[in-house]
Amino acid sequence: MPSPEPSAPALDRPEQVVTVLGLVAASRLSAFDWLAADALHAPRTPARVAVARLASGQLGAYDALSRSAQEHGGDLTAAAAPYLGLLDGIGHRTRSGDWWERVVRTVVAGGMVRDLARTVGEHLPEPVRGVVVDALAGQGLTGLVAAEVAQATAEDPALAARLALWGRRVAGEALGAVQPVLDVVESAGAADLGALAAPAVGTISAGHARRMERLGLAA
Amino acid sequence: MPSPEPSAPALDRPEQVVTVLGLVAASRLSAFDWLAADALHAPRTPARVAVARLASGQLGAYDALSRSAQEHGGDLTAAAAPYLGLLDGIGHRTRSGDWWERVVRTVVAGGMVRDLARTVGEHLPEPVRGVVVDALAGQGLTGLVAAEVAQATAEDPALAARLALWGRRVAGEALGAVQPVLDVVESAGAADLGALAAPAVGTISAGHARRMERLGLAA
Repeated sequence: MPSPEPSAPALDRPEQVVTVLGLVAASRLSAFDWLAADALHAPRTPARVAVARLASGQLGAYDALSRSAQEHGGDLTAAAAPYLGLLDGIGHRTRSGDWWERVVRTVVAGGMVRDLARTVGEHLPEPVRGVVVDALAGQGLTGLVAAEVAQATAEDPALAARLALWGRRVAGEALGAVQPVLDVVESAGAADLGALAAPAVGTISAGHARRMERLGLAA
Repeated sequence: MPSPEPSAPALDRPEQVVTVLGLVAASRLSAFDWLAADALHAPRTPARVAVARLASGQLGAYDALSRSAQEHGGDLTAAAAPYLGLLDGIGHRTRSGDWWERVVRTVVAGGMVRDLARTVGEHLPEPVRGVVVDALAGQGLTGLVAAEVAQATAEDPALAARLALWGRRVAGEALGAVQPVLDVVESAGAADLGALAAPAVGTISAGHARRMERLGLAA
């Protein structure tokens, strides 16, 4: 079935639906990983608890995603695996032992990965589109981190400069995964997604700028 | 109010209820930590996903516990902090880079900590007792790990011997935390819990033996 218009390819064949569900699941699994590792390194108990709870929330929709994949003849974990490898790569290239760099990484890269999954998921038919929207609903990490970062950078202007630079580096790593992720979607049965790449990068970049602004950091 | 009988101290004053809720929350937070770290080190994607999902489930009752603590005039995270320190100590003394030792540690120590929290929580009045029972409901880790361990040890008898020894060592570390945990419960406003220590150790040891049997390891 041809797309109704070049900028909105419909992803409605079962193998297309399953691979997009795999992308969404992988985005939640990598968010879980990053947040869980952040929680393990939190400097104080309240932050540890808050971030652990955010990590826990990432997989709350896994059952619903898994059920949707089964209804379309697929296995969610198998569909997620190739995307997980790419997203793990972002994680490995943006490791840091510093708490502030850690949480800024998770806000910046996690936000961009979520926006990418959202952008692709918008082309799914209902009702699976709704399942994906629910699975990708934000849980307040940016707000939580923004409050802590604002307080810390107010007391330490050099930290603000360092985190702004770090945020740009993380954004570069996450942007670099957009085309490889879209390539996996295509190779797993999707139509030509070439028309999706440019708007996806636009949406992701705009979301990144908004998040950096909320963190009080120069994008 | 005096306890109805020595073996069943009633923990019904607000400060007693809050500290027991803190113990329960700390037990879920340490389970989250151990499972999340296990997931990050899982050798294959299906195990990674399964363990990450178990980790996520540990904090599903945090809101209900937090609400109960507030209703009794306390703050859950503050109440959990002293217990977390003790449970973190078990974790630090039972670290391993080996996947099998990792998951056996989490089954063994996590199970014992859960049994300890259950034993103390049984002395709470309703309805908070029900909140605690729900928060401590098992999520199938032992069954998941047992299947994997059984397959691995069938192919490698030396592994079974090593894991049995490791399980005993982990059990020793976890048992060593029972009295310090009961001391914190007491110091935070509970009545004399001396009568609780012996039955608690009995319950915990019996649960440990059952779990080792399910894992197919000599206790």
